[in-house]
Amino acid sequence: MERRISGRAASDGLAIGPSAMLRALDGASRPKGSIAEEHAALAAAVVRAREAVAELIGRLAGDAAELIGFQLALLEDDALTETAYAQIEAGVAADAAWRAAMAEEIAGYEAADDEYFRARASDLTDIRDRVLRHLFGLADDGQLPDGAIVVARDLVPSAFLGIDWSKGGGIALGEGSPTSHVAMLARGRGVPMVVGLGQDWESLDGTLLVDGGRGFVIVDPGVRQIADAQTEGEALTRRKAGAVARQHEPALTRDGTAVAVLVNISGPADMTVLPAAACDGVGLARTEFLTANVLHDEEAQYRAYAELMRWADGRPVTIRTLDAGGDKPIPGYTIDGESNPFLGLRGLRLSLRHPEIFRVQLRALARAAVLGPLKVMLPMVTNAAELDAARGHLRDVLAELADSHVAFAEPAFGMMVEVPAAALAAQDFAADFFSIGTNDLTQYATAASRDGAEVADYADVLHPGVLAMIAHVVRAGRARSVEVSVCGDAAGDVRAIPALLAAGVRALSVSPGLLPLVKAAVREIDLAKLAEGA
Amino acid sequence: MERRISGRAASDGLAIGPSAMLRALDGASRPKGSIAEEHAALAAAVVRAREAVAELIGRLAGDAAELIGFQLALLEDDALTETAYAQIEAGVAADAAWRAAMAEEIAGYEAADDEYFRARASDLTDIRDRVLRHLFGLADDGQLPDGAIVVARDLVPSAFLGIDWSKGGGIALGEGSPTSHVAMLARGRGVPMVVGLGQDWESLDGTLLVDGGRGFVIVDPGVRQIADAQTEGEALTRRKAGAVARQHEPALTRDGTAVAVLVNISGPADMTVLPAAACDGVGLARTEFLTANVLHDEEAQYRAYAELMRWADGRPVTIRTLDAGGDKPIPGYTIDGESNPFLGLRGLRLSLRHPEIFRVQLRALARAAVLGPLKVMLPMVTNAAELDAARGHLRDVLAELADSHVAFAEPAFGMMVEVPAAALAAQDFAADFFSIGTNDLTQYATAASRDGAEVADYADVLHPGVLAMIAHVVRAGRARSVEVSVCGDAAGDVRAIPALLAAGVRALSVSPGLLPLVKAAVREIDLAKLAEGA
Repeated sequence: MERRISGRAASDGLAIGPSAMLRALDGASRPKGSIAEEHAALAAAVVRAREAVAELIGRLAGDAAELIGFQLALLEDDALTETAYAQIEAGVAADAAWRAAMAEEIAGYEAADDEYFRARASDLTDIRDRVLRHLFGLADDGQLPDGAIVVARDLVPSAFLGIDWSKGGGIALGEGSPTSHVAMLARGRGVPMVVGLGQDWESLDGTLLVDGGRGFVIVDPGVRQIADAQTEGEALTRRKAGAVARQHEPALTRDGTAVAVLVNISGPADMTVLPAAACDGVGLARTEFLTANVLHDEEAQYRAYAELMRWADGRPVTIRTLDAGGDKPIPGYTIDGESNPFLGLRGLRLSLRHPEIFRVQLRALARAAVLGPLKVMLPMVTNAAELDAARGHLRDVLAELADSHVAFAEPAFGMMVEVPAAALAAQDFAADFFSIGTNDLTQYATAASRDGAEVADYADVLHPGVLAMIAHVVRAGRARSVEVSVCGDAAGDVRAIPALLAAGVRALSVSPGLLPLVKAAVREIDLAKLAEGA
Repeated sequence: MERRISGRAASDGLAIGPSAMLRALDGASRPKGSIAEEHAALAAAVVRAREAVAELIGRLAGDAAELIGFQLALLEDDALTETAYAQIEAGVAADAAWRAAMAEEIAGYEAADDEYFRARASDLTDIRDRVLRHLFGLADDGQLPDGAIVVARDLVPSAFLGIDWSKGGGIALGEGSPTSHVAMLARGRGVPMVVGLGQDWESLDGTLLVDGGRGFVIVDPGVRQIADAQTEGEALTRRKAGAVARQHEPALTRDGTAVAVLVNISGPADMTVLPAAACDGVGLARTEFLTANVLHDEEAQYRAYAELMRWADGRPVTIRTLDAGGDKPIPGYTIDGESNPFLGLRGLRLSLRHPEIFRVQLRALARAAVLGPLKVMLPMVTNAAELDAARGHLRDVLAELADSHVAFAEPAFGMMVEVPAAALAAQDFAADFFSIGTNDLTQYATAASRDGAEVADYADVLHPGVLAMIAHVVRAGRARSVEVSVCGDAAGDVRAIPALLAAGVRALSVSPGLLPLVKAAVREIDLAKLAEGA
């Protein structure tokens, strides 16, 4: 008999398949060897886990790679293994020693006051299980049947990333949140996902139908339901295939208005997702990969920017200066212990406090501007004086480069619009372009943190007050004759695109994987009809 | 020779007087008695410190009392003294045992990740020294010469509150911040204060001139400087006296426009500052005094609201429903460990999650509405659906009261406008009135936390984007024919009042102590000239 269990929608789409309960490692065992053998076994397992994670990072793009980067850093940290080795020396088996050492670490993270660190406990659990799998000689990732519906209490990002989703499949979780990292990854890959199914998740056995858009799971669905879902699923697949086939064509609305579709680049891997010819340029290249060690390294930065310019092959490339702080700490650069870091020192505020670091980046950017139309974008600009101060640094840097006979060009100098007061005063800012960061703009405008699952429903980009801010920026951009684009998640969200175009936006910058569907969504919009409806 | 030392402006005004360095307790000593005597000595000192704090709270109004309330709670907690008693039993002297026990506590607070808890370490230091003073038989607060300039590394709120400022005086601190609690208290009492003077604070000896508005201290000022400062100071005093003499008159601008000036009430003591006849009503009565134990107590709440209604004597009284969360946690009600509590579950968001508690408050309010024009104000409203949901609860409560034949009246039902998206969409909200909370509105609009000293300069209510939001709310209020007032700190800030009136605001709600100067500031404004200047 079919049974329907309600949860929360986390990633759109339909999937039908056999349930695959993600089992814990409880049943596994191994014979204990000598102290030296146990030591060697754990060392080998850690190395193999590290290699597997590094390999995974190589295959992944952008945000996904960044998420797993934290695990790699942990696995490369000897402090994590020292406690375990000490126990092995005392005669404990490698797996028990590792479990005990990790339990201590995990408890420390779980007890943290800070939500961010508590959330990192799942990364530690993930590392623990990865190493244990290698110790037990199990495959690093369980072998799942093609198109399986993964059933678990919760899922860590690396477990998601270790699964081959190319054959379909879906996810049904007892806990979890639509705003979690893994939900973000699932949406990026188009894997249907329902979270928050409650204790019933343990009874999800047999054939499952996951409706990720409506937020429920059906156990042993009837023939009719399967047929309907398959029809709907096939239509979706056809839509995707059609969109990819037309990804190189420009995006014109039904009534013929051109909408530029650019891409967001978070790291080198994002340049492999799509040929540059499919996009109208790079609307947002993040530079948070500039970890502490390259903040002072102009050459390393120049090489990274030059690579991006060559990939874009003459198309405009918008590079955002370092946007640290908030939920992106850089030890020694950002401030620790702010009680509300999203409302603290971040983005340009930090750059202006560290002009020596800011100028290194501006120098590297001005040199790379020789290679094509490079645009420098400042994050978290709040008032006009800050933008002027930043431009002062740019002028100084250009003068220095001229004096030292280094090849450079003056880049366009614009700003992210993500602070509500700046949005409403956009006409006062001497920016060469505006790019609306809808994620932060929405979080501030609705006073609902991006990482707070409890307030996720408040942070709605379609709130009329948020849309009014966006429309104001568009008007200010037209009045000042500068370009206005949107580079937040809303630009890649087909539910938000009509409202953005209605507000006057004509340039969207999205994750490379979303570009085909975004172009397809634009082509379905009739601006005249939208205006009538408004 | 006069010497000028620069710091940061923390509280406006000029003061000249002899320096009074606040000495530590280092030099004091006392003979050690038997274990029983030491135990009794500490117990007596704690009791006397507790009585002194309780007495201080009785004398203070609103925010000040709230700040010290934390210290009273600590002194009433046996956990704080247990460690000390254990040491006394082991033969340690009472003062040494108390110091050691408090050192441990203070270190714990100082090591906290959370800025809020780190800031509380100064309250613990304050408690430690209070108890020590009683142990050493010193006066609870040092005797200072009249009009002395208090010089210290930093100053805790209760030390400030223990000083008699009626004879003048000022404050010069080596450390501290303009956004600290003590700076807020100094501004409320009109005590000139400069902070952040650096290591030089230890050399501030002799006659000092504190310029709290310009942020510097002059040691041994010349005759001319003293005369100038005295002239300026006397003018300020005359201005204040003149303002108080006219506090009962309505506030009309030069060109004859009436501006309503109401008061903010944080607790019973605020009703003693000013006769109700001097104000146009209560623009904001906070109900955060509803600590966990009265959240469910309708009668206790009714009595508190009724007292306020009787004080206001027929003038309108706006009572805000519980605004917990953010920096105002209530154990068991608010959520712990949010990474950005200001962007989390607070105000109405929490009320809607706890309807049983919300309805108790609505019942008590509807009953008190029989006593005069009572207006219920909802904090942190983000979208129109929330306001509708809240009104649904009100309707249910009114029906219940009618069924049970309890006397009640339907109160006006309006909202704080403090979420930027709500400000820009004010026209969509079915509110009976709007009251703009400029503190939170500014913090969200500029993405700069109210309690983050590092970003204090960003949180500027005069940012053109913030003023545009305020002007929008005024227009929306006129279009909907509902009243718009301002109840944040900006309403009591003479530098901000012209901009608020220019934006169309015609009602200001301020701390009772500021009302005379606010009325005086309104009388100096010429709206027609303001409009020309804009």
